[in-house]
Amino acid sequence: MNIGILGSGMVGQNLGAALVRAGHRVVLGTRTPHNVDEARGPASKSLGDWLEQTAGRGRVGTFAEAAAEGEVVLNATSGAGALDALRLAGAANLDGKILMDLSNPLDFSRGGLPTLFVCNDDSLGERIQAEFAGVKVVKTLNTTNTSVMSDPGQLAGGDHTIFMSGNDAEAKRQVAGYLRDWFGWTDVIDLGDITTARGTEMLLPLWLRLYMTLGTPMFNFKVVR
Amino acid sequence: MNIGILGSGMVGQNLGAALVRAGHRVVLGTRTPHNVDEARGPASKSLGDWLEQTAGRGRVGTFAEAAAEGEVVLNATSGAGALDALRLAGAANLDGKILMDLSNPLDFSRGGLPTLFVCNDDSLGERIQAEFAGVKVVKTLNTTNTSVMSDPGQLAGGDHTIFMSGNDAEAKRQVAGYLRDWFGWTDVIDLGDITTARGTEMLLPLWLRLYMTLGTPMFNFKVVR
Repeated sequence: MNIGILGSGMVGQNLGAALVRAGHRVVLGTRTPHNVDEARGPASKSLGDWLEQTAGRGRVGTFAEAAAEGEVVLNATSGAGALDALRLAGAANLDGKILMDLSNPLDFSRGGLPTLFVCNDDSLGERIQAEFAGVKVVKTLNTTNTSVMSDPGQLAGGDHTIFMSGNDAEAKRQVAGYLRDWFGWTDVIDLGDITTARGTEMLLPLWLRLYMTLGTPMFNFKVVR
Repeated sequence: MNIGILGSGMVGQNLGAALVRAGHRVVLGTRTPHNVDEARGPASKSLGDWLEQTAGRGRVGTFAEAAAEGEVVLNATSGAGALDALRLAGAANLDGKILMDLSNPLDFSRGGLPTLFVCNDDSLGERIQAEFAGVKVVKTLNTTNTSVMSDPGQLAGGDHTIFMSGNDAEAKRQVAGYLRDWFGWTDVIDLGDITTARGTEMLLPLWLRLYMTLGTPMFNFKVVR
């Protein structure tokens, strides 16, 4: 399958590499596709290293190229940059496609732990769906660390939960299949329409505190029932 | 132990009955202690029934009586009424004591699913601690249904998580003991100071959607690590 990923930081690189390992072709979209030498963030490799790692099945391109070439598109940008990245990707390149939205509305501008830049009756998932009405936005994978995202089985044999929010039932059915087939997720809960993204985005403050308390990002929530 | 509970609705009645069964003496505080005939909410018994159930070890009183007689006090009021109830309880009756704050800042005023009446850098736990500076506020038990609160073992043998937030380390150590001894909680995570209550209060929107999706309140979060 051809998969477009918007965002070349730690999340995009890691998921892209995992998808290539699973046999897919990936275009990693970035504002700066020609800068392949610099590390993309403190915990990330350079895109040159990523291209070497993905050996011909991974490519680097603009946001628009990633969106155009992906049959499915993953938004792995920072929350603050998500709408701008999607505008650069272009509605025409995204229309009718599934957009798996992994971004979180984190505001790092005040230093210290980020807070959310949405509040209670708003979410980044909804903002994206509202602006890109022709796209099937499915919010998912935003509630755990990227290493757990791409390989849930490394934690308690995969016995924990991932959520989906979106307006299109068939798109969510397909995304549940992708989550299982690409990464191995077995407990996928469909929360409802895109407004339910409020709930998973609001999980981030607890996630961040747990990261500090536990001293590791290698954890996830399981809905025990 | 003498335990004061503020709030005579479903949560207060249920926890009060569980504490009496565990051998404690409970004063259930309410604005209207003389009204023992009416049901206290759609899923609650009357206080007359509760008194019968708790057979001499449970009493009904004012908020002030519950606060004064409790060696430890539980705030099981609705979030919107919490500060008013605590003012009626009286700082002098609470000072120096542990207040386990179970309340959530839910705004039911707009109909439909409630939202929070706090936002991002605020929490009800912090508001309570700020106004009652002499009280050792420990936010806990606010992330699950009251039936799970008082008997976590009925769900997956108790293999799931409860959180604590508070400024006083010794108070949290004691509360962790109460959670274990009173109810059987074994996985208690201390998130940090009272500002970490933001994280657990912000879990409510996800909890409410899960309640709708799963069709039952009998679930809880486990932090898998």
